[in-house]
Amino acid sequence: MAFGTAGADSVAQPNYPRNAWWVAALAAEIARAPYGCWLLDRPILLYRTESGAVTALDNRCPHRWAPLSQGKLVDDTIECRYHGFRFGPDGRGVSIPSQTHVPGACSVHCYPVQEKNGFVWIWMGDHDRMADAPAPPEMPWLDDADWTTIHGHSDINCNYMLLQENVLDLTHFGFLHAASLGVTDWVAPPIVEVKDSTVEFTQTFESRALHEGFAATFGLPTGLNTRYVSQGRYLPPSVHEATETVTLPEPVAGRQTFHMKILHVTSPMSMGKFRYYWFYGWDAKVPEPVLDGWRKMAPVFWAEDQDMIEAIDDIVRNDSRATDCIEVSVKADTAAIQARRVLRAMLASN
Amino acid sequence: MAFGTAGADSVAQPNYPRNAWWVAALAAEIARAPYGCWLLDRPILLYRTESGAVTALDNRCPHRWAPLSQGKLVDDTIECRYHGFRFGPDGRGVSIPSQTHVPGACSVHCYPVQEKNGFVWIWMGDHDRMADAPAPPEMPWLDDADWTTIHGHSDINCNYMLLQENVLDLTHFGFLHAASLGVTDWVAPPIVEVKDSTVEFTQTFESRALHEGFAATFGLPTGLNTRYVSQGRYLPPSVHEATETVTLPEPVAGRQTFHMKILHVTSPMSMGKFRYYWFYGWDAKVPEPVLDGWRKMAPVFWAEDQDMIEAIDDIVRNDSRATDCIEVSVKADTAAIQARRVLRAMLASN
Amino acid sequence: MAFGTAGADSVAQPNYPRNAWWVAALAAEIARAPYGCWLLDRPILLYRTESGAVTALDNRCPHRWAPLSQGKLVDDTIECRYHGFRFGPDGRGVSIPSQTHVPGACSVHCYPVQEKNGFVWIWMGDHDRMADAPAPPEMPWLDDADWTTIHGHSDINCNYMLLQENVLDLTHFGFLHAASLGVTDWVAPPIVEVKDSTVEFTQTFESRALHEGFAATFGLPTGLNTRYVSQGRYLPPSVHEATETVTLPEPVAGRQTFHMKILHVTSPMSMGKFRYYWFYGWDAKVPEPVLDGWRKMAPVFWAEDQDMIEAIDDIVRNDSRATDCIEVSVKADTAAIQARRVLRAMLASN
Repeated sequence: MAFGTAGADSVAQPNYPRNAWWVAALAAEIARAPYGCWLLDRPILLYRTESGAVTALDNRCPHRWAPLSQGKLVDDTIECRYHGFRFGPDGRGVSIPSQTHVPGACSVHCYPVQEKNGFVWIWMGDHDRMADAPAPPEMPWLDDADWTTIHGHSDINCNYMLLQENVLDLTHFGFLHAASLGVTDWVAPPIVEVKDSTVEFTQTFESRALHEGFAATFGLPTGLNTRYVSQGRYLPPSVHEATETVTLPEPVAGRQTFHMKILHVTSPMSMGKFRYYWFYGWDAKVPEPVLDGWRKMAPVFWAEDQDMIEAIDDIVRNDSRATDCIEVSVKADTAAIQARRVLRAMLASN
Repeated sequence: MAFGTAGADSVAQPNYPRNAWWVAALAAEIARAPYGCWLLDRPILLYRTESGAVTALDNRCPHRWAPLSQGKLVDDTIECRYHGFRFGPDGRGVSIPSQTHVPGACSVHCYPVQEKNGFVWIWMGDHDRMADAPAPPEMPWLDDADWTTIHGHSDINCNYMLLQENVLDLTHFGFLHAASLGVTDWVAPPIVEVKDSTVEFTQTFESRALHEGFAATFGLPTGLNTRYVSQGRYLPPSVHEATETVTLPEPVAGRQTFHMKILHVTSPMSMGKFRYYWFYGWDAKVPEPVLDGWRKMAPVFWAEDQDMIEAIDDIVRNDSRATDCIEVSVKADTAAIQARRVLRAMLASN
Repeated sequence: MAFGTAGADSVAQPNYPRNAWWVAALAAEIARAPYGCWLLDRPILLYRTESGAVTALDNRCPHRWAPLSQGKLVDDTIECRYHGFRFGPDGRGVSIPSQTHVPGACSVHCYPVQEKNGFVWIWMGDHDRMADAPAPPEMPWLDDADWTTIHGHSDINCNYMLLQENVLDLTHFGFLHAASLGVTDWVAPPIVEVKDSTVEFTQTFESRALHEGFAATFGLPTGLNTRYVSQGRYLPPSVHEATETVTLPEPVAGRQTFHMKILHVTSPMSMGKFRYYWFYGWDAKVPEPVLDGWRKMAPVFWAEDQDMIEAIDDIVRNDSRATDCIEVSVKADTAAIQARRVLRAMLASN
């Protein structure tokens, strides 16, 4: 099912560009134990060598196609659980228990990876396209000791672009999250700009009562009237980073401006399933009880999005019209429409 | 899987004619709350306006394809849960929270409906075919205060025609329902007549001991010898109405003839699943304890049919021969064969 | 999914030859009750007539395709549960409750069967190919009162050749079964011979400490140094018989040579599922407590194989490369490669 990119005639075509950096895992998830996952319809194995470097291989032994992630690490090699073939971190076969000769063909594909801002990024496209491709986005706040962050992830049974389009049109706050979020003033279409392939929207509230949760997070009194600017940036194909900026009418305890970041990362296992990583961050030390509140609230909130986008996917899969059905876009969809455009361009040149 | 209509080469083709009235729901199920269901491979939304009229719309918001049935009614409009778009009972978009202009294309298909005998009937075919199509069948006993009725419904995982053919050949009573029904004399092929597109069969027992359940229902003594006539009518594509007529050798308490009606309605969600509505009715006041007995017996009885027709569907789906397999029909299948013919004619002109 | 036979372009083609004898059931499973199963993508019914002979019919009534196995035996006939049609053990329709005439077409396919060594073997291919086909293999030890056997079966969700290839390369012992079996010396590729269509391998250990389990089974002291010969024979398409021969340096209680047999039978229900029958046998009276130990150990052991081959099937089904992926074979795969060859030859002439 192709969503968001080229309409009905692309239903059978994957809508994830291979020539791009994708998040394969959180850096903290990868250690001295084989970690298997699915990405872009391929099985991937991740582990760290003794030096701490992350390696990413096809999670499919070239001998009899066993998942290497069921095996074990022996020094820097992965030993297949089925017949004990060992492969180095570059994917080359290094030993076969039943013979001394290791055929040259006995190797698995090794994918380029890099660690950045707490993520393991993987390149699953053509090698000669990698140098010219945009690097994984810069998100220094994820590593910044002056920021407090929380995060989580879940597996969602629908196309990843349904989540990306969800967060590119926040006018759904007042409806889908009416009960959980209590926001009702998010109704105007934002200002949208496309810079290179980044789609950015800005929503400005010149005068807005400080949200209770925000006040508690930053240790501010409630009821303050603020200037509130919400910016969202789609960094295709998989990242959306939002920045909420709250400016007080005058400084409180010497500080007038406060930030919250919200990060959405979508890693497609297949066309119909993706892993969703989310991060919240604040440029302050946030007290643990307040963080706990955020930790409890977030899954409630995300479940509303998940239920909705899975329901949409279900409709498209079961309706005999599939994607061959009218789809009306309005001004509030400008960012999502631009996101489809940049994604379509990536797919076309893929 | 195409059953009952045109054999193996129609496997990939739906066997439900669109240009016909179908039961979308019981009238009592539709109130001032959105009701979502699937019919003929389409998602449908039903609700009542403040005037009490039923409206049927595509259950798929034209904006981002959310199921409208997750939304809520605001006066006579349905408000989408995702971004708050509202649609009138005619399917026209009436408001979009993020802008004042509502594009003309922003509407959902509105399906003609009518309420009749406690059912909501829907027309999902071509508008210009509606006037010439047969009206939903007349079943006044369903509304008649002199009749007592009970009913139920369940979702069955097979093609709807397997149920229709089941009730067109009651020689299965003595085998499939041998334990539950205790009937063993239902062995002769009935007389079959086709009137226009209605298939009717008549089974006459000139002398039959009154069934205990019947006796209790009508307050008659057991052991009476009766004339028993069973008539079944297939009103294509979805309705089967049976009439059992019991005539006593002489009047008891001034009455000699008694009727039971059995109604089977099949509403396909898809080729492999349908909702089955059943009604029992008697032209008498039936004491509550006796009705309770019928209510308990019916699910036992229907489960035998359901298990069998689901098992047949399972065989056809998994056998490599699929529907390309010999199928022998006998005299007792005459009504079912005629039903296939009238259905095939409807499909051909569809 | 076609495994083991002809690579990627045979994915859509069944890899089980029809013109061969297959195991339909254990002889002990078939009695005076209808037994339904799936074999080679067809529904099969088995039962014994009053004379004790096994009959195998299509488990699909030619009337309305009901599974005959839900019916009951009446003398030597099977009576369909749906409408009571009866069929003799040759598949011929013998009575129809609703009429006296039984049309000639009213019959189900009757498959040739034979009982041999405790199995019911079935022929699902062309009749005129049966005479020239190899008979079911001779495995007299299964009936030999001087042998002790145990057995079991389970349904495995992958292609049957993944199991056959598993047991044709025992170098997996030291890895997949390292914990359960404790064998680490099974590393050299065996000697492989192909005789007609039988693939045979021989692994010889000139000096090997007697396995504790073996010692207990035959009532031998532990710690003995033995000559150990392991032979495996693939008898295509469905049988693998292994013979382990232990020779002591000198006789103990008058006996120097001991045998264990291991039998693997794979009966495909479909391309993605098969029933796996296993037998262990020893040419000795084995004490009940020792047998109990084997009975407990076997499922642990087989579960390791099942998990692995199901994981491989899962990878091939979900990886976008499917079977179009490099597959490296080594010397230890010689027997499996030969097995593919003989199977491919059977399929080509099918």
